[in-house]
Formats: sequence, structure tokens, C-alpha cells
Amino acid sequence: MSLLFKHLRVHQIFGANTDVGKTILTSALVRASALKNNNVFYLKPVSTGPLDSADDKHVKRFGGRAAHRIRTECLFQYDEPISPHLAAQTKGAAPPPSDETLVNAIAGYISRSAKGASLEAPGHIYIETAGGVHSPTLSGTTQVEAYRPLFLPTILIGDSKLGGISTTIASYEALLLRGYIIDAVLLFNDSYYRNNEYLHAYFAERGIQVAAVPPPPPLSADTLANRLATEQYYDTLVPAAKRGADDGAVGISDIVDHLDVCHTRRLDELASMPRRTLDTVWWPFVQHGLMVDDSDVTVIDSAHSDFFSIHRAPATSSPVPRTGTSILSPEFDGSASWWTQTFGHASTALTLAAARASGRYGHVMFPQATHLPALHLAERLVKEGPGKGWAARAFISDNGSTGMEVAIKMALRAFTMRRRGEEQVIRKIKRGEKEVFGVLGLKGSYHGDTIGAMDACEESGVYTCEWHDAKGYWFDPPIVAMRNGEAVISVPAALAGQSTEKVVKVESVSWTYDVARRLDSELASVYRNYITDTLGSLSTNQDVPTLAALVLEPLVLGAGGMIFVDPLFQRILIDVVRSGGIIGLPSLGPDSWSGLPVVFDEVFVGLYRLGLESTGPLLGVLPDISVNAKILTGGLVPLAVTLASEAVFDAFLGTGKGGALLHGHSYTAHAVGCEVAGETMRIVDRLKESEGWNEAKGMWGAHPTTQEDASKVWSFWDPGFVESVSRMAEVEEVMTLGCVLAVKIKDNGGGYVSHSAQEVFGKLKDCVGSMDDMGSVAPGGAPYGIHFRTLGNVAYFMTSLNTKGDVIRSVEDRIWRTLMNRQAK
Amino acid sequence: MSLLFKHLRVHQIFGANTDVGKTILTSALVRASALKNNNVFYLKPVSTGPLDSADDKHVKRFGGRAAHRIRTECLFQYDEPISPHLAAQTKGAAPPPSDETLVNAIAGYISRSAKGASLEAPGHIYIETAGGVHSPTLSGTTQVEAYRPLFLPTILIGDSKLGGISTTIASYEALLLRGYIIDAVLLFNDSYYRNNEYLHAYFAERGIQVAAVPPPPPLSADTLANRLATEQYYDTLVPAAKRGADDGAVGISDIVDHLDVCHTRRLDELASMPRRTLDTVWWPFVQHGLMVDDSDVTVIDSAHSDFFSIHRAPATSSPVPRTGTSILSPEFDGSASWWTQTFGHASTALTLAAARASGRYGHVMFPQATHLPALHLAERLVKEGPGKGWAARAFISDNGSTGMEVAIKMALRAFTMRRRGEEQVIRKIKRGEKEVFGVLGLKGSYHGDTIGAMDACEESGVYTCEWHDAKGYWFDPPIVAMRNGEAVISVPAALAGQSTEKVVKVESVSWTYDVARRLDSELASVYRNYITDTLGSLSTNQDVPTLAALVLEPLVLGAGGMIFVDPLFQRILIDVVRSGGIIGLPSLGPDSWSGLPVVFDEVFVGLYRLGLESTGPLLGVLPDISVNAKILTGGLVPLAVTLASEAVFDAFLGTGKGGALLHGHSYTAHAVGCEVAGETMRIVDRLKESEGWNEAKGMWGAHPTTQEDASKVWSFWDPGFVESVSRMAEVEEVMTLGCVLAVKIKDNGGGYVSHSAQEVFGKLKDCVGSMDDMGSVAPGGAPYGIHFRTLGNVAYFMTSLNTKGDVIRSVEDRIWRTLMNRQAK
Repeated sequence: MSLLFKHLRVHQIFGANTDVGKTILTSALVRASALKNNNVFYLKPVSTGPLDSADDKHVKRFGGRAAHRIRTECLFQYDEPISPHLAAQTKGAAPPPSDETLVNAIAGYISRSAKGASLEAPGHIYIETAGGVHSPTLSGTTQVEAYRPLFLPTILIGDSKLGGISTTIASYEALLLRGYIIDAVLLFNDSYYRNNEYLHAYFAERGIQVAAVPPPPPLSADTLANRLATEQYYDTLVPAAKRGADDGAVGISDIVDHLDVCHTRRLDELASMPRRTLDTVWWPFVQHGLMVDDSDVTVIDSAHSDFFSIHRAPATSSPVPRTGTSILSPEFDGSASWWTQTFGHASTALTLAAARASGRYGHVMFPQATHLPALHLAERLVKEGPGKGWAARAFISDNGSTGMEVAIKMALRAFTMRRRGEEQVIRKIKRGEKEVFGVLGLKGSYHGDTIGAMDACEESGVYTCEWHDAKGYWFDPPIVAMRNGEAVISVPAALAGQSTEKVVKVESVSWTYDVARRLDSELASVYRNYITDTLGSLSTNQDVPTLAALVLEPLVLGAGGMIFVDPLFQRILIDVVRSGGIIGLPSLGPDSWSGLPVVFDEVFVGLYRLGLESTGPLLGVLPDISVNAKILTGGLVPLAVTLASEAVFDAFLGTGKGGALLHGHSYTAHAVGCEVAGETMRIVDRLKESEGWNEAKGMWGAHPTTQEDASKVWSFWDPGFVESVSRMAEVEEVMTLGCVLAVKIKDNGGGYVSHSAQEVFGKLKDCVGSMDDMGSVAPGGAPYGIHFRTLGNVAYFMTSLNTKGDVIRSVEDRIWRTLMNRQAK
Repeated sequence: MSLLFKHLRVHQIFGANTDVGKTILTSALVRASALKNNNVFYLKPVSTGPLDSADDKHVKRFGGRAAHRIRTECLFQYDEPISPHLAAQTKGAAPPPSDETLVNAIAGYISRSAKGASLEAPGHIYIETAGGVHSPTLSGTTQVEAYRPLFLPTILIGDSKLGGISTTIASYEALLLRGYIIDAVLLFNDSYYRNNEYLHAYFAERGIQVAAVPPPPPLSADTLANRLATEQYYDTLVPAAKRGADDGAVGISDIVDHLDVCHTRRLDELASMPRRTLDTVWWPFVQHGLMVDDSDVTVIDSAHSDFFSIHRAPATSSPVPRTGTSILSPEFDGSASWWTQTFGHASTALTLAAARASGRYGHVMFPQATHLPALHLAERLVKEGPGKGWAARAFISDNGSTGMEVAIKMALRAFTMRRRGEEQVIRKIKRGEKEVFGVLGLKGSYHGDTIGAMDACEESGVYTCEWHDAKGYWFDPPIVAMRNGEAVISVPAALAGQSTEKVVKVESVSWTYDVARRLDSELASVYRNYITDTLGSLSTNQDVPTLAALVLEPLVLGAGGMIFVDPLFQRILIDVVRSGGIIGLPSLGPDSWSGLPVVFDEVFVGLYRLGLESTGPLLGVLPDISVNAKILTGGLVPLAVTLASEAVFDAFLGTGKGGALLHGHSYTAHAVGCEVAGETMRIVDRLKESEGWNEAKGMWGAHPTTQEDASKVWSFWDPGFVESVSRMAEVEEVMTLGCVLAVKIKDNGGGYVSHSAQEVFGKLKDCVGSMDDMGSVAPGGAPYGIHFRTLGNVAYFMTSLNTKGDVIRSVEDRIWRTLMNRQAK
């Protein structure tokens, strides 16, 4: 996380290359800061080269009149003047510190330094990196990557030599690709190569100040003379420039002022953002009438891995925070940013994927055209992904909701074409005499917020709008959960054939998902008979529209409340629908759909969010149409893909344009989204074989191998923890699969507008831990809060596909303590 | 454009820095290629340093046994060994060649070299750049940028010195940001710094081959000895390695083979893409029944500025293309890729904007949170953009269609809340007894492809689907166009009060848009009376739903056929609706809406696509809700913003969540989209003051200043050209504003499914010009075709906001010739 303090300004210094004057210019900054009466902290996290020479340099660096204000420290020192990753290897058998250790050590240093900082005793920290931006640090990770979790404001030391324009700009772009704030570029003047002139204009266009200073005097053989010359050199560098700054030639003192201004501007901007947001932004799904105070707004300053770096204005009632407390703190993104995050935030691999597609194509027209990112993605999904074994075509749109609108258009057309033949359909459409078609689904379903997607869901009372016109019939499904330490299936009253819900205890959560084994069970007969009877009566009910598609969120109804549907019920529903006779139309052949086209909305559940690439293999049935989004693009940009079988595709084939699927968005198959999706699929393929996955699978008794056994469900959440939570006093039930943990709080039935879950878990938002120990699992080891979302009386928590085990254990611990503390009261 | 030939392989060579061995390793490649019996072309486009030493090096470079197969050339030579941009400045008064001149010269060289290439006499070209990737070339543009239009496959020479890991990776990322294909990284072995080992592993993960070779022998003072040592050195480099390649140490000969494989793989992939696309992809708005041959698919290999670089399989009937003809050719993106392109394709500024947001945030949760890219965008649009003077809030969604769904939800709620009071609305929704609400609009409107957006449009027969249920009333509007050299307004029969359309000649196109001056005209009275009468009768018509919003695409109905509506009609329609009494509800106060909430769908027309930031100032009325998308993100990624007035926002305020606007997408306000949109706005602000805009405005008699005069319309298309086209035999009418040119072909009324415009302009797709002169306006000066889209019998052509004047003149010329040639037949 980014540590940010009011009275302590921190900058990290990167070089465009090695030997560009990084140490000299940093020393000048340190001296200038000290001369302005700041307490100055100079940190060299990793140093290579003999200690003697470093000592000698230290004297050079930090002499001067204000030397008493300067503190220096080096965290990891190696003798040999080579790249740190090699230096670390040479130092005997001790393994080099991990990136996390290095970053936490730096964060600890900053945090300690902040303690004494105040308006009266302001501090400046300069952290000097080693070599160039991409020089490897001790672990072998390149520095721009390794230091990214701290997200510190940056000074780039430019290269004044021949070729230095290139290394400076390339280094700038490497920093920019990681999102760093770059406050200044410093370099030496060189009147022959004049890089400074070029870079001054170049960065001015990009809003970055460039300052050039005279190069140091040549070294002489006489040590004393050298020291004297060095002191004189610094004395000329530091004062504010008297000349105009048009040529970029300024005093280092001016730069220190500029950095102070950047710091103050950043603090001011963070402070102003809540009010400005409340004044201008209209949030989705938020009752703005309740958003009154600055403290109602979470300012996300940056994000990394599973954590936001946030600023939240203190509530008016809060005590004034201590001096030395960071204004920014990490917050675990417990909703995976609305179920999108896949590898955590700001994944460099995805940034580079977006960049290379943008650089090669930008966005290009898709109809009747093709490009590699779209074609590769289509092939991957159809042949090797969720479409394997059934899908023939990929249709690309912008988000889950549009993907589902496409799916519904496909299904309805496939149904009507088979029933009436092309001629009749087109004639009827032209006459405007359309029959009303509906979908068959489950109560609590959610397919998106555009009207077509809404119309495929039951109207529930709250979640609706003036044009919502639900068309179809929705079954009340049986639900799987852990209650009081036991796995249960809650069968709705009507389905159970009794006046109240029937709760059936089952062997285990895992057992529930072995659908094949349960097909001959008593419950299966109950389901089958109920579904058959209901569909029979629907087919003669004039109030129900012609049912033309079966539309399901397999396994979990997400936005409807994280409802884990009994998979056996969904399987039997599909089987009954497909068996024909009761509803729908007979199949035209072995490769065609029968009964109704079956649509799987896997926008939320697909692509391993529940631990499975797609839900078909577990259910033992494959869809005719399916939709993927969210994880599809790794949590970076919107994109959706609707997959369809050849039989569905064929319903739109003809010779006239009117019969085509007339749905497209301007940015259909935008190259950036497709390339990011392709990269996501590649990374997921590697993750599947990772230790983290094998460990999680092992906890659940699923095979920790790359071979997927469709009947073995698993979760990143610890089964023991889940069971314990299910026994807590305030918890009605709990359930988990893959990344998802859903905790339902006992409640008097507030439904979607209930606040009970918010109340129970409200304390999770507080930062827990002390700045002193800095030993948390969050970036930099800082105390962290947990962001979570609720759906009425259900709180859910969601990991990425690569959230580390220790992070999940820590979040589990916090959830557990929160419940225990309430129980104890 | 990228030149690509079957028997001529071209690679450009970039260095990670200056002095990394680029010349030596290129020489080794040249020699190795020659030894494999290729005709080798070595091009140094720009060389600095004394010619003598260059000559000397040439001898060194290109000696060896196969020297007779090697041709070398240098296009621009400067004596002083400094950066080319400085060298060019020192060379007397002659201005340095522009990037275009340089790139066209290189393309010409490649094209000439391709002539002799054949299976029997294959060729290799190596183009060696100067300095590092970002070293400035003659114009001052850095090389990775300047050479990008040619999109040549790339070899990166890595840096083996201390710091070289950083410069190599940073250079790689700079290349990647421009989308380059990188086939290999070459560098010297250095057993002390061992950069090769690190880079070998690093690039292996990224699928790029790294090869390391021994460094050259030290230079001696004896020239002859030097030459001998050099020859010996090359002799050891070139042969294929005998050792395993695990350490990356291979012979240059192996690299040449690898590059050949990369070339062949690229050719094979391009050839396979059409069939694979036809087998897997489901395109929007395309009748796949008509897509049979490979030649029906346009393969877009890359794109730059306003041009795609395309490969299209020859139709089976076409003659075999000549040897020496490029497999790739430029195609002008004449639909601005479905109206999205703003600064041409692959804009580096937008790539970097996307990258920095991705690097800082990835995507982060938006409800109840804020981040700089979203906040800045909201403020820009509300306060300084299309919302200036009326909007209070920005709601962000994913595309024009979702933005319109949001707008409709806002308008309907605002209407119902005012009419019935909050209590009643919520109770009624809960009871499920909803009144049917509709919108007032124009025939030919289009608002998107999701069902809600479709339902706001009249059902036209073809463009519909099973769930389309149009709700509202749509006026048949009067239309502005140029016919036979004259500006006319076509008034529909009913509106004109006669049995056929009435065509009114007017002063000029520009005159038509001076709405304020026309308010008292006779036509204004006709419009006012007709609208008033119609609305009066609608209010008592039981078959029409309760009209609850006025929804318009101002000025131009885009997808409905590029229909330029008489702005006076839209103005008077709004005035009548707002005057109250006839329809809708009275205002609640001076800051509130009256009659009906007015929605401007500016998805297509806004943000200067028609030369105006928004249409309100021209019409003289401001909306209550408006939607922007397409240009919003500069043509890179999907994003939409719905702006709303405070009165509309207030309709959703309350204390219960149920009253909030329950619409949101997972990637709502994704940081990448918002940052790209912000960057787009910044670039547009600069463009507004550009010479190109002033010239275009000047042609149309609009003030060529940054001050916008709302009543002065203008176009990038030449008024003389537009007038001439309007006189052509096959043209019914033509019209233009801003970037848009619409040509309506005389037709027997095929409407949306008509093919007449496709037929008339079909020849535009052919590449025109000769590879010999290479003097076109396309990248590299190559012959180019024109991609265009039609809407029934309307063909339209669309520029970006920065398409160069000479490109537009060239496209105009091609359109003109095409029409003339047909007329002559």
C-alpha cells in the first residue's frame, strides 16, 4: 500500500540507467531538503559494491552545513558491484529476501520515520533504487515491479549521454505502465548531446517538470581535493536558480520546492475528492439520499494485488488521527470489485496485453473482418474453453448484460424458427403481430440491468423499473448451505409438498455436488415429479407466455443473494425440459436442441469463480447457449462472449440480411478486451497447476492435480472455518465454492433492503493492527480494513483466483473474530 | 502500412541503447543470410557520423564469402556523430525530412527490393535504426513512433553491460506499447554481468527467443589486423551452434532460420485466418449465409492513423497476384470503425492513458467509491463539456446502448415521480400493476441494440427481434440534404398537409442550421401547428401509451440511415413539448423540466463528430438527460456517460435503497476507460485549435477560431465536392456535417436491405495506384483501398477528428472518380 503522511514527504528515485548520476542528484536533493530545515531520511534499500567506497560516498553525499538533519540507512548490503540479483546469489547459502520482505522493510522504515514528523519538524524521505528501472532486485524481480505495492511518488534520473533520450523515455514508459506518479525528471546538462533540451520539451507536453543541472567536476587522484571539489559542486547545485527556467536549468532547491508542491497538491486533491464526487457523480445501486458526509466516500488512490489503497475522510465524530498515521491505508477488496478481479488489481501482464493490442490495432471494425486477438479468443472459448464439446460459435459483446441479451435473442429466434419456419416468422414480424414469448427460470435469478436481461427475471418488487416487464415462469429452487455445522438442502414448501420449507440434512457439501450419484435418489423423484407437473399445468395456463427458452445461472444465483441452488434440481429441470412432450419442441436431430434452447448465464459462476471452468461437466449436461464475462477479461475492461451451438447459429442463416442477428455494439470485439481476455486465459491455465490451487483442493478432498474431476467441488476458503462460522449465533447459514464465501445473517426478512449483514460485519472495515509492527498480510505489512458487499442479509466475501493463502487465512480470522466479539457481548 | 511479401522477409533492428552492438550483430545477420543464398538488402535509413568511418565499417560488415549477394543503402547521411534530430539541424538551412518522407522512402526501398524476390531468389532485408528505440529521428519524433506506420517485424539488440537488463526490458516494453511483433532479442555474452541468462529466462516466459553470441575482439591500432580479426570473428559467429541452446548461445545462422520460421508462420497464420474466422466467429449484423469464401473476410493485421493494414484472400476468380506484390495493403477506415475513431487507430497517447490507469488501479469498484480518472471525467463532462449549463450528474456505463437504457430509466422515473408522488409509485410497482409508458421520438431513430433501447424506437420491420416491443409515438421528420446542387428540405406529406412529400429549396445548408433565425418562418408555423395538433390527438388516443419522455438523436439519425433532420423541427418539437398543456406535466420550478424530460442521444452525434461538442447550443435548447459514448473514449474501449439535470437526479433521492437507480455493470467506471476518455478530451481540446480544423471551417465560412459560433456548421468534407456529388446521375442526395458524408443512391426503395449503395461504390475497395510510385496518402505511400459501410441505399464515409486534409481530398477524389466512371458507362 502507499504510505502517505501529511508532514512526511516520500519519494523514490529511479534511474534511466546505471551510471546516470542517481547518487549525486539524490545527494543534492537530500542536502537541499536538509538546508530547508527538514529532517531528511535517505534510504538505500539495496546496495551493491564495497562498503568502503560506499562509506566514502556517504561522506561526500551528506556533508554540508545541514548534515545533522540527515539520517541514512541501507537495508541490504552486498560487496560486489554487480546486479543485486547476482549479488544476492553470491552471498553464501542464505536465500535472498523475498519482494514482500524487502517492501515490508521499506514500509517499516517509512512508518518509523513518520513518527517524529510534524508541522514543526517536517520530514523528507528519499529512497534510492539501484541501477535502472528494470534492474532486478534481490529476488530477481525487476525494481519497478517489486516496489509497486508501495506506490511511492517517483523521481526519474534521466540519462544525459548519447542514447540517453531513449533510455530516459523508455524508463518513463516502464514507470507509467505501473501507474507510478512521476513528479520530476532530473538529469545533467550536456551541451554536446543536449538531451536536456529534448526531454524538457517532451515531458512538458506530458505535464512533468524536467530539471537539468551541471555535471559534477572530474575526479582527481587527491582524495582531499576531491572532497573539496564535491562540496563546492553541491554548493553550486543546491541554491534556487536565478535564471529563468526555460532551458530546464534550475537549482535543486527549486526542485525540492516543486516536490513539496506536488506533495501538498496530492494531499489537497485526496481531501477534496469525496465532496467533489458527492457533487458530480451518480453511482449505480446507491441511494444518494443516504450519502451525505465525506466519510461516506471511499477514495481509491491506487490498487495492487487484492488490496485497494484508500483514503477515507474521518467521520465527523471520529477522533483526530495521530500524527504519523498514514493518510492512505490498505483495504482488502472483499467483493473482488463486483466479482471481476481475477489476479488482483493492476496486473502487469494484463496492462501489457492491453497496451500491445492498443498499440497494434487500437479498436478496429469487426463485422466481416477479423483480427488475431478476437480470433484467438473465439477459438479458445469454443474449442478449449467453456464451449468445449458443444459450442460452435462465439459472439462478442460488451458486458454480461449485453451478452445475455444476445443469448436471449438467439434462444427466442431458435425456438420460433423451429416452430414456424422462416417464412412465417418473418411475415409475422413484419405484420407486427407478435406472440409473447417467455423464459423458464428460477426465482432469485439475475441476468443484468438492461431491460431485456431484466425481463428474463421475475419481478421481485424492489429490483425493477418502469419498463421492466418480466416474461416467463420461475421455479422456487431448493438451496444448499451449511447450517449449524451441517450440510443441508432447504426444499421450498410447494416443492416439498408441505406447508413449510423442508430442511434435508445431507452427508456433506461435497456430496451434494456429486449429481450423477444422486440422480436416482428420493429427492430426485420429488424434483422430477414436481417439475413435470408444474410444466404440464403451465402449458395450458393462458396467463403464462409461450415458454421459449430455459435460462439459468448454474449452481449459484449471484446478485439474487448468493443462493447456492441444489445442482440436482437444475440438472433435473434441464433433463425434463429436454425430454420433450411436456413443454417446448422436439429435437430435429442428434446435434440439435430439444424441448427448449438451454441458456447458461455463467457471467458470474464461470471461468473458475466457483472453481470450475464451466458448470456443465458437474451438472452432467451441456447448454445450447452460454455467456461469459467478468473474469473473462481478468478484471480489467468490459467484454462478454455468448457461445452458441451450431443448431442455434443455423436459425439465423439465410440469404437476407433481415434474418441475421442484428445486434452489435460500436466496440464489438475491441482488440484491447480480446487480447486481455486471451492473456487471462493463459494465466489461468498456469494458475490451475499452482501450489495455491492444489492446497485449496487438498483441504476439500478434491484431487490436487491438473486433472479436473467434475464431481469434486472445492473452495479457497477453509472448510473448518466455514463449518465454524455456520455454528455462530447470528449466522443462519453459510456456503462456499471456489472464490466465494456467502454468510447469511439471521434476520426478520428484510430481503434486498435489509441492513443486518452490514451491521454484523461493519467492524471489518476498520483498519486493524498497529503501524508499529507492520506485520499484516497487506502490501507493506500495514494494518488493513476489509471492504465487503452485502445483498440484503447476506454478506459475501470473494477472493481472486490467485489470492495468497495467508491473505485468505487472515481475512477468515477477521471474520471469525468479528462474529465472536458480537457473540461475546 | 506493413509491407509483407512471400519471398522477401523484412526485419527492422532496434537497439536497447546506443553502443550495444547493433551494427555488429546486424552485420552478422546480413552475412548469415547471404551465406544461406538469400539476396540481402541492408538499409540504414538514417546514419550519423563521418562517411569515411561508415565506409570502413561497411567493408567490415559486408565482406565474407557471400558479399556479392549483399546490397547496402543509406537514405539520409549526416557527418556528425550525434542524435539524428540534432544532426539534421546542423546541416545548413534545409529542413529535415518529415516522418512521412522517411517512412515512404523506406517503403519505396522495400517495394523495389521485392521486385526480384521469388522462391528461387528469396530476399532478406535488414533495416538498422539509429541509437535506442526512443532515440529521435530526423524530425525529432522518436524512432519507435516514427517507424510505426510500417509495422515491420522487429529484432531487439539487447544490452550486455551493467544496467543492460533494465535498458533491454524497458526497450522491449516501448516496442510492445506500439504493438510491434518482436521476433528475437540478440545480445552479447558477458560472463561477468550475465544479462543474457536473466533475459533468456525473462523473454522465454514471454515467448520471445533470446540469442547471445560472443562479443567482438578488441580493436587494435593496425587497420589490416583489425579487418582480419573482424572477418575471423564473423566466421565464428555465423555457423549454427553445435552446443545445446539452453544458455541462449546459438549461432547467427540459427537466428536467421528462426526469423525465416517466424516469417513463414506469419504468412500461414494470415492465410488461415479467414477460414478459421468463418468457422468460429459469429459477427454482429452479418448474414453468415452470404459469407462463404475466404475472400469475404477482411483480415486486419494491424492499423495506424486512418488506415487498416489488411490481408484479403484473393477471390477464386481473381488472377494470381504478381510476385513482388505486398500481401498486406492499406485500407482507409471509411466508417471510422463504426463511428468510434477519433484520432485514428493505435494512438500512442491513448495506449499510454490505458496503460497508466491499468497500472495504477486495474479496475476498482465504483459504487460509494471514487478514483481520479472517473472523477475527472465526470467533472469535465458535467461542467466543461456537453453538460455545461444544465447537467448536474454523470452516470457511467459501458456503451451507448446501456447509456440510453440508463437515460430511459431516469426519464421514466422522473416523469412518474412527478405525476404520482413517491409513495404511490413504489406501491404501484410492488403491486405489479404498471401503466405502460412510452416515448415520443422520430421515425428512423436508433438508440442501441439492447431491448430497452430498441423499445424506444419504432418497429421498422427488419430491425427487430422477438422481444422488441416498441412503446411510444414517432414523428416522420423533415430532412435536410443537397440535391442536384441545391440545398433542400424534404417535408413529409402529412406534415406538409398534402398527398406527397414537399421539397422546399433553401438558401444553403449552412442557412438551415441557423435555427434562431428560422423560428418565425412560415415552415416554423407549419411544424408548430402540426406537432401541436398531433400531440393533442395523441393525448386522447387509447392505443398510444402514456408518453413520458422525449427521446431524440439531435441533428442526425445515424443508424436509421444517416438522416439529417431539419433542426428547426427538433427545436419546435422540444419547445411545444416543454410549453406544457398539450402533453406531459407542468414544471415544478425554473430549474426543473417541464412537459416531458428531454433525452438527447448524442452517442453518435456528440463530441465533435458533427463538428459540435454538443447539439444543444445549435438547437438553442438544452436537454434534461444526454448520453455520450463512441468518441468519448477516442475509439479504443467501450464506455458511456449519461448526464442528468439535478431535477432528474432528485427523482431518485430518498431514504430507501429501493428508490435508487438500480442499474450498474461490473466494470462501471472502469479506470482504463475513464482515463482514456479524459485523455481524449484533452487531445480534442488541442485539436479544436489546429490548422486542420481552421482550414475546414474556413471552407464552410465558419469562423476559423477557437470560439464556437453555435449557428455555424462546418465539415471536413469540401463543400465544392459535396455539391458536385449531389449532381451525379446515380445520386439522389448528399449531406455532410463534421466528419460525416452521406450519399444516398437512387433506388427503388429497398430500405435497410438494399444493396444499391454497395454496388455503386463497390470499386472503392480496390487498391488503386502502383507499387512503383508509392505516392499515395496511405502509410508508406502504398496503393490503398477504401473500406466503407452502407445503410441500405445510403453509403457513408467518416473521418476521424484529425484526418489529414490530403487524405480527405484523396478519398473525395476516389469517390468522385467512381461515380464519374459509372456515369460514363
